Parts: sequence; C-alpha cells; structure tokens
Amino acid sequence: MAESENQNELPQLVIIRPGPIFSMHEGLFGEKFRLLKAWESPEPLHKFLAKYAQSAEAILCSSVTPITADVLSLLPSLGVIACENTGVELIDLKECRERGISVTNAGPAFSRDVADMALGLLLAVAMRIPAADRYIRARAWPDHPCFPACNFKLRGKHVGIVGFGNIGSEVAKRLEAFGCKISYNSRKKKPYVPYEFYPQVIDLAYNCNVLIICCALTDRTHHMINRDVLKALGEDGIIVNVARGPIIDEQQLVMSLISQEIAGAGLDVFEDEPNVPSELFELDNVVLTPHRGAFTEEVFSNAFELTMANLEAFFSNEPLITPVNLHD
Amino acid sequence: MAESENQNELPQLVIIRPGPIFSMHEGLFGEKFRLLKAWESPEPLHKFLAKYAQSAEAILCSSVTPITADVLSLLPSLGVIACENTGVELIDLKECRERGISVTNAGPAFSRDVADMALGLLLAVAMRIPAADRYIRARAWPDHPCFPACNFKLRGKHVGIVGFGNIGSEVAKRLEAFGCKISYNSRKKKPYVPYEFYPQVIDLAYNCNVLIICCALTDRTHHMINRDVLKALGEDGIIVNVARGPIIDEQQLVMSLISQEIAGAGLDVFEDEPNVPSELFELDNVVLTPHRGAFTEEVFSNAFELTMANLEAFFSNEPLITPVNLHD
Repeated sequence: MAESENQNELPQLVIIRPGPIFSMHEGLFGEKFRLLKAWESPEPLHKFLAKYAQSAEAILCSSVTPITADVLSLLPSLGVIACENTGVELIDLKECRERGISVTNAGPAFSRDVADMALGLLLAVAMRIPAADRYIRARAWPDHPCFPACNFKLRGKHVGIVGFGNIGSEVAKRLEAFGCKISYNSRKKKPYVPYEFYPQVIDLAYNCNVLIICCALTDRTHHMINRDVLKALGEDGIIVNVARGPIIDEQQLVMSLISQEIAGAGLDVFEDEPNVPSELFELDNVVLTPHRGAFTEEVFSNAFELTMANLEAFFSNEPLITPVNLHD
Repeated sequence: MAESENQNELPQLVIIRPGPIFSMHEGLFGEKFRLLKAWESPEPLHKFLAKYAQSAEAILCSSVTPITADVLSLLPSLGVIACENTGVELIDLKECRERGISVTNAGPAFSRDVADMALGLLLAVAMRIPAADRYIRARAWPDHPCFPACNFKLRGKHVGIVGFGNIGSEVAKRLEAFGCKISYNSRKKKPYVPYEFYPQVIDLAYNCNVLIICCALTDRTHHMINRDVLKALGEDGIIVNVARGPIIDEQQLVMSLISQEIAGAGLDVFEDEPNVPSELFELDNVVLTPHRGAFTEEVFSNAFELTMANLEAFFSNEPLITPVNLHD
C-alpha cells in the first residue's frame, strides 16, 4: 500500500515497448518514476495512452519503439522523449518540433565504442584479418604459403569521415594515431574542427582512400552513398559503415564490391537487418558484423544512466544533457 | 666489358641466399655493389666464400639466411651484416660482437605496419570480428539474433607492452587514442618513456588486461610468456603477438585458451610457421593471421631503402642508420 502510494507520487514515465535489455535497468527507473508499461496492458495502445493524456509528460523510448504523430497526438502533455539509444529515426521529429516536445538520445554513451568498431572494421578490411583467419583455419598456409594480396597500409592514407558528431570526432582521434590524413563531410562546416570540410560527399569520396560513415539516418542521408559516390571513392577505396544501413544504397554497394569498383567494405549495419545480401558472403574483401558496434557490457549501463540524467533534468526544469537537435 | 670493369670497382656485397622479394630490388643493389651471389654458384658455400675472404666487407642478409660462426670465420674482412628484415635471430650475434662486425636491420621500416597489425588483432579479438563475420556468413543472424558475448571495451583497459622498441612505442601511440592505460616491460627502464615500467613480465601481466608482445626473440625472451605469465594475465585477459612465435610457450597458450584461463588471443606469429596448432581452429576467441604484420607493398621498398642506406653509410665510414645493439 505504502509502495503504491509512493509510486503514485512519482512522475509518470510511459514505456510503449521495452528495448532488449531494459529489464536489467528497470529497477533503477522504477525507483524514480511511475512506469506506465503499455506493453503489459491488455488494452490497445491508443486506449492505454488516452488514460494518461493529461498527465504523462515523458516517454522512455528504445530502438524498437516507433513514436508516430498518432502516438504524439494521444499524449498532449508530453514534454520529453528520452531515448536509451542513438538513432531517432523511428521518431516523428518534425511533429515533435511542432508540438514543442524535446527529444534526448544516449549517443555520447555509445560513441567511443562505435568509433572503436569503425577502426576495428577498417583494420580488419585493410589487413584482411578475417580472410587471413579463414585461410589459416582452412589449413591452407602450409600448402599455399603465399596468402594473397598485400595489406592496405593506413599511414599517409586520406580518410573521409561522413558525419562529424560524437562518433566522427572519436574516429578522427583514433585515425590520427595511425598517421592518416583526415577530412570530413557534414551538414555544415564545424567551427574548431581542424580537418578539411567537403560540403559534398562525392567530393570527399573523390579525394579519399577510405570513407567512414558516422552520420545519422535522415531523409537527407538516406542512400546518400550511391553509385556515383562509390565510383568517386574508386577501385582502391575502402568504405566502413558503423552508422545505419540505409545511408548506403546497399544493392549498389554489393555491385560495386563484386565488380571491384571499390576495394573493400567493413559493415556493421545493413538496410534490412538481420538480413544481409548473400552475395557478400562470397567476398574476401568484405568484413561483416551484426550491428554490434557498441555492444559492450559497460555501454548499456552508461546509456541508461545518461537517459536517466536527461529525464531527471527534464523534471527538474534543468537543461537537458544530450538533446537531439530538431532544427536541421 | 665496360660494365664488368665498372662492376669490379664497386664494393662487394655477399648474398648467401636472397629473400622472397629480393629480385624486385636487385637492380637497385646491382647499381651500387658488385653482387656476390652465393646461391647461383655451383661451388659449395665455403668454397664460394673463401674466394672473397680478403675482400668481402659486407653481407646482405634476409630472413632466410643463417649467419653462423662458420660463415663468419670464412669472411675475416667482414665489417657489416645488413639485414633487409627485422629479426636477427638467425645471426650469431655473439660471434659478430667478438669479431667487431656490425649488424643493421630494417626494423624501423616495418614498425608502424606491425603496430597497425597489433591494433588490428587486438580490436578483432576484443570485438570478435572474425567470429562475427563467420556468424553472418553462416546465415545465423536471422535465426539466432543474439550473437553471443559482449565486446571487450578498450577504453580504460590497462595494456602491457612487452618490448618497448620501435614497434612497442608505435603501439603505445595508437593505444593512447583508444583511451587505454599503458605500461611496459623491457630489458631496462627507458628514459623519456612516460609509462610505468615493470622489470618482470609476470608483474606486468598481473596488472594488465591485455599483453602485446613486441620484443625481439632472444635467449632471454624464448618462452618468456609461460603458464605463470598467462595465469597472471587472467581469465579476462587478451594476448596479442606480432613479434616472434617462440616468445610464447605455444603449447601452454593453447591449453590456457582452451581452458579459458585467458580470454582470447590475436596471433600473427607461431612457433613452427607455417604450422599452427590445430586446436586453435575450433576457438572463437582466437584470431589467426599468417605472419603478415608488415606485409604492405610500401614497406618492402622502405626496408630495402633503409638496408641500402646502412650499406652506404658503412662504405662511407658514416655512422650506421639502424645498428642492432650487440651489447645486451
């Protein structure tokens, strides 16, 4: 009885559907919020939400929850959508902007791990590490002592970073240590970034040996890496994607890899996960990982802590820690 | 006729057996030296060398040429052994020291590429990149959407570098960018190195999450990484070897990996190359590459240029560029 009274005094937090590891962190949120668990209710979603129309000010949002204009219209008191992940492509950001709803994400909690993954994939492609590992496991070394093809030397190579946010800047920091020259493309030139800015991604590709995709998926970036960009990158070029699959025209990428219009690719993300184009399975110049960029134990705790900090800031009328910019 | 006269005026350079890609660089050396090609002579080696006993001052040495005390006794005029590679374990260094023969190697030409490989292997093990790539190629993602095990997060981890020469310091530079804490072991504490020095490798292992082996193979370092060191590294520990196979007791390493006494290994070198213990082929926490650390196109040109520069320095009585220290 005491607990339920307490619960009723806590601010409400709507959860439409929990992310895969929410349960590990549920206790933390349950202490500070009254959790409104839509997915546990027998009612249809719109009925469930309608009950809290006047009171619910916050949603905790995972990568599996679309927040559509319909959902938003059911929650007129909503002030914040706090995402426990990075990508906000399932949220109707335009509608949020019009309704004055803030959105926060936990991007910074993931960015260093995703940057590590970008380098891991780049080195794996450049040195053909999985192909070399397959060659040894196939017991080919003693009989065919010349493992084919030289490594792609990183030092002195020109790397283009597409999207220079948290992840992009962490990738740049790592590439510096490998002696790479760095340039970048983003919506606009960033003050204080010492690297050359290319307003057009095709010009960046034309001038670079490697492209690393680190930008958000938006209408503007969907299929931004198309055939022209891949051709500009050229037959010695390597592309790495640790952002979102649909930023690259995947069918075109497959063709460019097969026809050796580009030299190789390291892909942690795909257009239609968990489905990966099977043509890639035959290629030795491709390294494939199952959207695991930031999958470390520590990172999820950090992400939930950051999500919590955003929610606490909202309910204390403090500035949000990591708001998503809704105005580009 | 003119050419052969010219040839006779050039300083002599003995080559007992050429390395695998010497032919690509033969022209360069032929312009500056009279090449004494022992392997093309029908005479036995000792007879061939005896002819040049009074005149031959230099040997060009590859990774496939043992330079024994016997060979050295046949060439009393010898002043320098110029190695086109890094490791000098096939050269009787003690005998060289006693005879006042200098030895140079081309280590610095390779060190940055080998350091890149060390990071490539470390990231590949930490993020299970080849295992993830196998999982996707086996079409397992759609049916088993949880790829097992989290990544090993690098940031904040304590990495021990064993051998802090050219390669070790390049590895440290790269690890800094990933936010690792760095310590090292070497024969003696290095002035100007800002990292903590551990005189005993077992203490380094005990205090670190990762060991990266970058030292030369010598009597002192043979099987230096034994069971005690692996146990000290511990069940969450990762070991990377880009130096020489026999520095690790390989049979013990296999057992430690199978029994999960350590968490993983990235190995570019093995005790009995090209033979790799087949027990490793079954393990997902191991990444195997066929001694390819420095195998980039550019690196071999750089190595031969450096070898040439050492020879030219020797014949001009200038200080050698990259002498091997024969006094430890």
